[in-house]
Amino acid sequence: TKCPIRPLHTYLRISDLKGCKEGDNVTIKGWVNNTRKMKKTSFVDIVDGSCASALQVVLGKNLSDSVDVVFGSSVEVSGVIGSTPKKQLELRAEDYRVIGNCPAEGFPFAARHSYNSDYVREHLHLRSRIAPFAAMLRVRNAAQRAIVDFLHTEGFLQIHTPILTASDCEGAGEVFRVRPDSQELLKGMQKEEIPLEEAFFDCRTYLSVSGQLHLEAMAHGIGNCFTFGPTFRAENNKSPIHLSEFYMLEVEQVFTSSLSDCILLISRMVRSVTEKLLDTCSDDISVCHGESKGNLFEWLGDSKEFPILTFQEAVEILQRNSDRLKVPIDPKEGLMKSHELFLTDFCCSPVFIVDWPAALKPFYMRPTDHNPTLVSALDFLVPRIGELIGGSLRENDYERLKEKIPAGSEWYLNLRRFGGIPTAGFGMGFERYLQYLLNVHNIRDVIPFPRWPHSCSL
Amino acid sequence: TKCPIRPLHTYLRISDLKGCKEGDNVTIKGWVNNTRKMKKTSFVDIVDGSCASALQVVLGKNLSDSVDVVFGSSVEVSGVIGSTPKKQLELRAEDYRVIGNCPAEGFPFAARHSYNSDYVREHLHLRSRIAPFAAMLRVRNAAQRAIVDFLHTEGFLQIHTPILTASDCEGAGEVFRVRPDSQELLKGMQKEEIPLEEAFFDCRTYLSVSGQLHLEAMAHGIGNCFTFGPTFRAENNKSPIHLSEFYMLEVEQVFTSSLSDCILLISRMVRSVTEKLLDTCSDDISVCHGESKGNLFEWLGDSKEFPILTFQEAVEILQRNSDRLKVPIDPKEGLMKSHELFLTDFCCSPVFIVDWPAALKPFYMRPTDHNPTLVSALDFLVPRIGELIGGSLRENDYERLKEKIPAGSEWYLNLRRFGGIPTAGFGMGFERYLQYLLNVHNIRDVIPFPRWPHSCSL
Repeated sequence: TKCPIRPLHTYLRISDLKGCKEGDNVTIKGWVNNTRKMKKTSFVDIVDGSCASALQVVLGKNLSDSVDVVFGSSVEVSGVIGSTPKKQLELRAEDYRVIGNCPAEGFPFAARHSYNSDYVREHLHLRSRIAPFAAMLRVRNAAQRAIVDFLHTEGFLQIHTPILTASDCEGAGEVFRVRPDSQELLKGMQKEEIPLEEAFFDCRTYLSVSGQLHLEAMAHGIGNCFTFGPTFRAENNKSPIHLSEFYMLEVEQVFTSSLSDCILLISRMVRSVTEKLLDTCSDDISVCHGESKGNLFEWLGDSKEFPILTFQEAVEILQRNSDRLKVPIDPKEGLMKSHELFLTDFCCSPVFIVDWPAALKPFYMRPTDHNPTLVSALDFLVPRIGELIGGSLRENDYERLKEKIPAGSEWYLNLRRFGGIPTAGFGMGFERYLQYLLNVHNIRDVIPFPRWPHSCSL
Repeated sequence: TKCPIRPLHTYLRISDLKGCKEGDNVTIKGWVNNTRKMKKTSFVDIVDGSCASALQVVLGKNLSDSVDVVFGSSVEVSGVIGSTPKKQLELRAEDYRVIGNCPAEGFPFAARHSYNSDYVREHLHLRSRIAPFAAMLRVRNAAQRAIVDFLHTEGFLQIHTPILTASDCEGAGEVFRVRPDSQELLKGMQKEEIPLEEAFFDCRTYLSVSGQLHLEAMAHGIGNCFTFGPTFRAENNKSPIHLSEFYMLEVEQVFTSSLSDCILLISRMVRSVTEKLLDTCSDDISVCHGESKGNLFEWLGDSKEFPILTFQEAVEILQRNSDRLKVPIDPKEGLMKSHELFLTDFCCSPVFIVDWPAALKPFYMRPTDHNPTLVSALDFLVPRIGELIGGSLRENDYERLKEKIPAGSEWYLNLRRFGGIPTAGFGMGFERYLQYLLNVHNIRDVIPFPRWPHSCSL
């Protein structure tokens, strides 16, 4: 009803200046990004993180002579809005106040320099001061929002699946273990027959590698739902598409017996979210793309559906083109990244690969109706990245699942016993989506604080 | 542009039936929640997780005689929309198909029973089938969304601060440590002079107890921002307001030198989010409140601001009322929960406590201008819960911070050295907010998979 209506702050953000006209009195706060000193005036570009644009501030002779404009300093500037010869808004300063100085000595960045991302990443705590990284942060925020909005609109409920878990969902063994730091605490909590390490929870505890099984439990009462959060892999893999801590979207669709329902949902989500971001974040996306122009998203232009290949068809394409592959395809091993990229190039589009050999996929996937050695699984491959999404129909036959289920997951089996339903679902690596959207080579540059083998800075 | 327009599914969810009228042909899918068999017809209540309401399905004599209606089973029902004598929509079934049976043996719930939450919590994986818990899940989803929407509208950017961290922000020592499960992996990664336990990241690694310091680093380039995610405490505390893994909202306001800016933001957020939820989730909130009627949110009715007491004033109130306190107030120890609840009762409202003794608060808080032994900190206390939010101005004076900063946090100090800015921020326990909103006694009942000492089920 009646909230206090005083604004949260009295200065304007640069992204808000669109609403201003010449002659308006405004105050802005931000950081000095560039400066050009002339005889009579100085031009100072200010950025404040709100958008990709800098605001040009003009200091007349008095101010220009009396203040020391230093790159990287935080400042408060008041004045009158004017217009440049190119009809861009500028701020004619009447007052220029330094909030925090920025000594050049020790500061890793300087005006009019651009830095490669390896160098920038050495200074994680200051990365948000660098334009392409700040642009990435804004797109990351918008992308999460667009995904969540899409799923809410389609009737999916967001569920927080746990980070700490007693079960190792994928059974791959690449998990982190967790225990309290304090030995004293553990000793005080220990019960008979429980090893000291496990005294806090009375069991071995891991960081989640996937929230899927927990999500399915909620889906069996609440219906369509998703989880979006951090996920962990203790894998000694330093590739540019792997992190030890990454964000994953996992979606579960209820009352679904056909993989085509899952394909439809994924197609619609990827298309809708990508269109929205290209539309609303075009400036920031351009900053991230940098030099590499050209339309990276040609498939958006038409309304065609993404091609769908069976695993067998994909293998045959790769076999027919073996002369163009560095490493030949071995169907028993599945697809390597180079094979995935060949297939997206071959299709000139993202592509679904469906109906996989059961041996290549986890226990919870459902056999196809026509061939019990195959499972109703999909990989969604995109250009430049390879696998972006993996999904499947879930095994909902109690007796068949009982044969396959790992020890300790009886609760999961019981979901099929008491009013069970057919479901399907998928998982998408959020950082890989951002790499794809922003054309960023290294996954460490699309997350604020990357963690990878031998590196957990800050 | 042109997404495929086939609907994601051909059945309707019960929450969508509002758009239906008598005579419409529909199919629904859900679980049998209740059944009343008459001579000629049966009435079956179906729930599907989409809303608090069940749909009454009417089985005519033929169906009623031929199908076995079992509590908890999943079913698909097609028929024609009709209207009950009380003008509620009902579904006159033409087809009733069981998807998954639900044997009574082994299923922990039965029709027409209500269960206490301790019992329900023993069956975590089936909790979403219980009406008050499903209602809580829907409100939890809506509450997260309302908070994020509010902050986006106010211009705050969502940032993912890391879960794995090399720093122990609060310095309280109540942290979980993390290492890979595989000794083989560690041996293969070990470098000279690094202990085996630390070989994965080359340092001790903890689960985050707060994303604040990392959030501040991003705020120093991107401006106003927030983080919302899981947070961990290795504390042997089984109280009904503590969890080992809980969700925390942390917000950082830039260019802020006055605690009143922070108070304004909190007041507006709590008011706006609570009003929105009481408005849009009233059915679900009623299910959670159960018997306990009465207006728990009287303060929403007026536009008065929340009262603000200094810590000193709060202590004096408690001292004047010592005969009504079980445990007297000791100002050196700060406020106990019973003191917090006395103060919210005393004020008949949520209340801010500001200007705390520095000794009671962490190193990163800024001294008040008028008294260097106090810090510009706030606790926001709410009835029935006590502390919901804690916040402060951040120490932005480089020299003063240098005196106080723990070893290993030099990067945080450097934020003040290179274009530093004054900021303020706060953290809110999301589950405590849900407890407050839904009047739920035990915090373990407002999170899907609660973790507390000696318990990490599933």
